[in-house]
Amino acid sequence: MELYDIAVIGTGPAGISAAITATVRNKRVLLLGSKNLSEKLEKAHEIRNYPGFPAVKGSELAAAMKAHLDSMGIEITEKRVSAVYAMGDYFALQADQEMLEATAVILTTGVVQGKPLPGEEQWLGRGVSYCATCDAVLYRGRDVAVIGYSPREEAEAAFLSEVCAKVLYFPVYEAEPILPESVRVIREKVTGIEADGDRKKVVTAENGYSVDGVFVLREAVAPGQLVPGLETDGSHVKVSRKMECSIPGCFAAGDITGTPYQYIKAAGEGNVAALSAVSYLDQLKRAKA
Amino acid sequence: MELYDIAVIGTGPAGISAAITATVRNKRVLLLGSKNLSEKLEKAHEIRNYPGFPAVKGSELAAAMKAHLDSMGIEITEKRVSAVYAMGDYFALQADQEMLEATAVILTTGVVQGKPLPGEEQWLGRGVSYCATCDAVLYRGRDVAVIGYSPREEAEAAFLSEVCAKVLYFPVYEAEPILPESVRVIREKVTGIEADGDRKKVVTAENGYSVDGVFVLREAVAPGQLVPGLETDGSHVKVSRKMECSIPGCFAAGDITGTPYQYIKAAGEGNVAALSAVSYLDQLKRAKA
Repeated sequence: MELYDIAVIGTGPAGISAAITATVRNKRVLLLGSKNLSEKLEKAHEIRNYPGFPAVKGSELAAAMKAHLDSMGIEITEKRVSAVYAMGDYFALQADQEMLEATAVILTTGVVQGKPLPGEEQWLGRGVSYCATCDAVLYRGRDVAVIGYSPREEAEAAFLSEVCAKVLYFPVYEAEPILPESVRVIREKVTGIEADGDRKKVVTAENGYSVDGVFVLREAVAPGQLVPGLETDGSHVKVSRKMECSIPGCFAAGDITGTPYQYIKAAGEGNVAALSAVSYLDQLKRAKA
Repeated sequence: MELYDIAVIGTGPAGISAAITATVRNKRVLLLGSKNLSEKLEKAHEIRNYPGFPAVKGSELAAAMKAHLDSMGIEITEKRVSAVYAMGDYFALQADQEMLEATAVILTTGVVQGKPLPGEEQWLGRGVSYCATCDAVLYRGRDVAVIGYSPREEAEAAFLSEVCAKVLYFPVYEAEPILPESVRVIREKVTGIEADGDRKKVVTAENGYSVDGVFVLREAVAPGQLVPGLETDGSHVKVSRKMECSIPGCFAAGDITGTPYQYIKAAGEGNVAALSAVSYLDQLKRAKA
């Protein structure tokens, strides 16, 4: 299997900046995220404080960043990373159904808005999943609910509808979902996930919906869930001024490291994280020599 | 006297970013530096890792940043700050011959390249000065030496030549100085400053030059000299992740806070420093209410 020098998880300004600087430093970079870069950046109405771009639309800044990546031949691998395992001198990344490997990892997955749902963490891996691609096979011919935090999750629900008997879709956003007819859209506020015999129950303010599995699909996964063993501070990762996390070889940048949630702060931290990862790789090489 | 909310000292990417974000947050900002922004940025051959600007010349990025400042009506005050005094709930800034005041200060003066000259710190204030505008009057009709680290210092030497009997100019750069005929340019490497009876002696590899005063003029002053009492770490200021220095109300960003010396890192830190300064102002206001 191909071992990358640095895996960058996330394609917001922090991840883009990290990938650019690591590439300038001649490292083999795996950039995992979305070809649309970042939902948040794309939709930003106007950004006034990214120096060099006065009063720029988020979509324009995103286009400039995409052009920057393209000019350097940096490709984006569109896979959703559901877990990162520290294996000693490398990391294994669960990316959709594949396992990918890198010597160092930079987390730039943003911040989870709001808390996990009541019951979500309790039943994770036992009826609650964060990855449709990974776990759809467990629910073949059975009933599932999808709690989708962005329109991007509609593709996941559509995929599940090809495999499962019944799919309920709970959109946690305003836009009207575009989904196959077989998917039932339920516009109710989900308040929790409960056990229901061998099944699960999605509880809303109004009702309870019994299903076999519940997919909770957000743009960002809480960092402690993404990287088991990582020292966190609520929804943020603890980092040093060099953007080092508590696990050697693991670095972080952007909103995931804490406030302020600002594009230029994220881009700056991505640069620092990349250079710290480069130092880490050099040290590892020297230690092995 | 006018009390600014935030004084930003330095017009590199860190200072520009801080001034932009503080202005977005409706603070009264005093931006002190050069209308040419930063010598280092201006002369950068090619910058490859400022996201959004692929393979940009330093002068082009500087022009984009200048346009950003202009679009927001942010003016640059061209004064050299030689000292910042913490006065309790505000700061007094020695800017050329004026004293200016601000509630919070953000230091973005870059990093001093190299060590002080032998004798420089020992004789500072007793024959060695960092500010021609401030101290020229002390040397009226007498002899001075100017050790200039950038062509920008030539204007200072020219000014001194109008006041002093004799001016020796030691350029610490390659370009040919453009100076009044009365100024004697000496192309020798200065190795130290020594006492010479009541006078001082500029010692070079080849000779010794006796003068009454020595002006050592660099782009950046060591942070401990700039802000008496500030906790430093060699040529860097100690900062928290929020870019707070050891003195409340004093923040720092960019190269002055340590490596890596990178434009995008500096811009990111400027943003964080500005938002921390805004929080500090809010707290101060609440405490006084």
